[in-house]
Amino acid sequence: MPPFDLPEGDPFGAHNLPYGVFSPLGSDERTVGVRYGDQVLDAGAAAAALGSPYVALLAHPTLGPLLAAGRTAWSDVRRALTAWVTVPSHQETIAPFLHPLSAVTLHLPFEVADYVDFYASENHARNVGRIFRPDAPDSLTPNWKHLPIGYHGRSGTIVVSDTEVVRPSGQRKSPSDPAPVFGPSIRLDIEAEVGFVVGTPSRMGEPVALADFREHVFGLCLLNDWSARDIQAWEYVPLGPFLGKSFATSVSAWITPLDALEESRVAPPERTHELLPYLDDSAEEPGGYDLRISVAINGHVVSEPPFSTMYWTAAQQLAQMTVNGASLRTGDLYGSGTVSGPAERERGSLLELTWNGRDVLELPDGKRTFLEDGDVVTLSAWAPGADGTRVGLGEVTGRIVARG
Amino acid sequence: MPPFDLPEGDPFGAHNLPYGVFSPLGSDERTVGVRYGDQVLDAGAAAAALGSPYVALLAHPTLGPLLAAGRTAWSDVRRALTAWVTVPSHQETIAPFLHPLSAVTLHLPFEVADYVDFYASENHARNVGRIFRPDAPDSLTPNWKHLPIGYHGRSGTIVVSDTEVVRPSGQRKSPSDPAPVFGPSIRLDIEAEVGFVVGTPSRMGEPVALADFREHVFGLCLLNDWSARDIQAWEYVPLGPFLGKSFATSVSAWITPLDALEESRVAPPERTHELLPYLDDSAEEPGGYDLRISVAINGHVVSEPPFSTMYWTAAQQLAQMTVNGASLRTGDLYGSGTVSGPAERERGSLLELTWNGRDVLELPDGKRTFLEDGDVVTLSAWAPGADGTRVGLGEVTGRIVARG
Repeated sequence: MPPFDLPEGDPFGAHNLPYGVFSPLGSDERTVGVRYGDQVLDAGAAAAALGSPYVALLAHPTLGPLLAAGRTAWSDVRRALTAWVTVPSHQETIAPFLHPLSAVTLHLPFEVADYVDFYASENHARNVGRIFRPDAPDSLTPNWKHLPIGYHGRSGTIVVSDTEVVRPSGQRKSPSDPAPVFGPSIRLDIEAEVGFVVGTPSRMGEPVALADFREHVFGLCLLNDWSARDIQAWEYVPLGPFLGKSFATSVSAWITPLDALEESRVAPPERTHELLPYLDDSAEEPGGYDLRISVAINGHVVSEPPFSTMYWTAAQQLAQMTVNGASLRTGDLYGSGTVSGPAERERGSLLELTWNGRDVLELPDGKRTFLEDGDVVTLSAWAPGADGTRVGLGEVTGRIVARG
Repeated sequence: MPPFDLPEGDPFGAHNLPYGVFSPLGSDERTVGVRYGDQVLDAGAAAAALGSPYVALLAHPTLGPLLAAGRTAWSDVRRALTAWVTVPSHQETIAPFLHPLSAVTLHLPFEVADYVDFYASENHARNVGRIFRPDAPDSLTPNWKHLPIGYHGRSGTIVVSDTEVVRPSGQRKSPSDPAPVFGPSIRLDIEAEVGFVVGTPSRMGEPVALADFREHVFGLCLLNDWSARDIQAWEYVPLGPFLGKSFATSVSAWITPLDALEESRVAPPERTHELLPYLDDSAEEPGGYDLRISVAINGHVVSEPPFSTMYWTAAQQLAQMTVNGASLRTGDLYGSGTVSGPAERERGSLLELTWNGRDVLELPDGKRTFLEDGDVVTLSAWAPGADGTRVGLGEVTGRIVARG
């Protein structure tokens, strides 16, 4: 098949064009790539061959310059790329710069500045409340419906899909232990999330309004917020999660530009509480995204969390994160929080799927409550595009290994 | 007075030599400077004039290359600098590269990678417990004596001393409010802390042992962890502080190398609980530092927190932060947590000094519970050096302004 002909319905066609950073196998040189089918286009080399001015944004070892260029540039570059992969004369010029996915290594596509993680699924928050605070009058904390709750995580341990995850050690203490014990986590979990990538920075002291979300956020990726529940349970009062999360966070290699997801925008769930003006999105364009996530352990799908059920939108999270005047930097990344739908098989964590280990998940290769060494966890997703097409969001995968 | 003669007892003599980054007034060029008395030595220019190989580590717009060079290089460069400012033939060569402090602008001296804040003062933690959980059986949470509690903060809003701090807005809700209200914080506070700067990185999956603290940590600075108590109180359950802290964190312009603080090392307070091996420092060299901090509002000293009273040491904090395999990067910064001594006038926050606004602080310019617009807060500190000398740690100052 000629390189620009894709199988019908390929989720990585000209309607998608996500960005990443790759090296050809055997090379250490990193450069920006654009996925097309099961191939990667060396975008800087293609731009140079076509005499395009966008070589200045694309011929780099990270997405940083493109992210920093701002919304108009994002649209312009996307329009150009679309032409390159669809117009025969351009195709001919750039064909030499297509690499099969199997012949490249994919890298973390940008330098993560600050990393924030939210907690925006009502189903997830209620499940967690029921599990850990069964006697509380409400499964949500009093603030939950008034603001998107978030916290800062560790940028330096964000890794790209396919990076092995070393099982963390730490302190844990069950109620029956007289003192904390130390050892490898025995409740290692996942959190299926979507990550949003900030391009355009903002100034300190100047909040970003809901309506300016698209000016600042370039695109999204899949994110697995690995969580050691036993470490987290002992450490997190009063200052929140720390070592239970900071050992690793995996992201997909492909950043899907928001411009590719116009058709998948949906209204978020109906709000049950009146919102303060800076969070009130009732007059805004739909802030939700209809992303269909799939969670697989060792190739076996255990859950299909629907992102459309998220109570708080990415635009509300951005408004919240900056309402105190905190500035944004190019490369800031924020996670949606675990995506859990209302159904049992839509839960985005093992904590919920096994009700904190009370229940067992039956896999073809055995029973699971939490993750075992050698387990491979893969999140994948797609979004509906125009005319029945699918926009592929790629996948984020990681294998658990014991510390050597 | 010739430029290398300092007044007797000057806390910034050849025994100190802290590092920063400066520009001569009117210039945008940043370069590494070393403080000597009330002057700044352009260290890269001095190295070049002397034909020193250390020009490769010093002639940069940030401390990054020096931080990344590792402990042996840190000692070698310090030894060279000491010779340059004390040996007459060198003095003559480098004298043209001394700038009066009054003729330079000081900048944030390194790019902050991850920022973590701890909670290591027992006096502070007990005061907070007594204020917010008066009915709890213990003023400390059950984990407090078993591990140094910490959380990640926002790197992108760390600013150098003298940067104005815009009063943050946000949600707050007092028990009598039926719903949260929005507005500028009415309980804006400080936290007097010491920040530790990581130079040598570590690999993911490999914890840093207590004994390797000095291999990784280059030096320390003063840090003011501005805190909006009303925003924090409403948001922080269950995931910890977020917007109540993320609007700004101020650090001093000078990083004091640990090599300058050998004489101020002291044993930490006696441990009341047995520690797990990775935190047990009973066989290590003294891990505390005898730093005498002073907190002034509008020039009036309100508190003198003694750093020697900190229960958890910086080495223990580093061991904790990495015990789960989280890696370190050059430029990681971690705060000690609020420094509070046992006496009332040794508390490092207004929360404690006014017992959450119950009491009033009498200043020459009026009463305070929390900070008012226009207030200037200055933390300064010194440490005992050899033979009765003092090692100056400089200061971190900031003025509160209303959002324009």
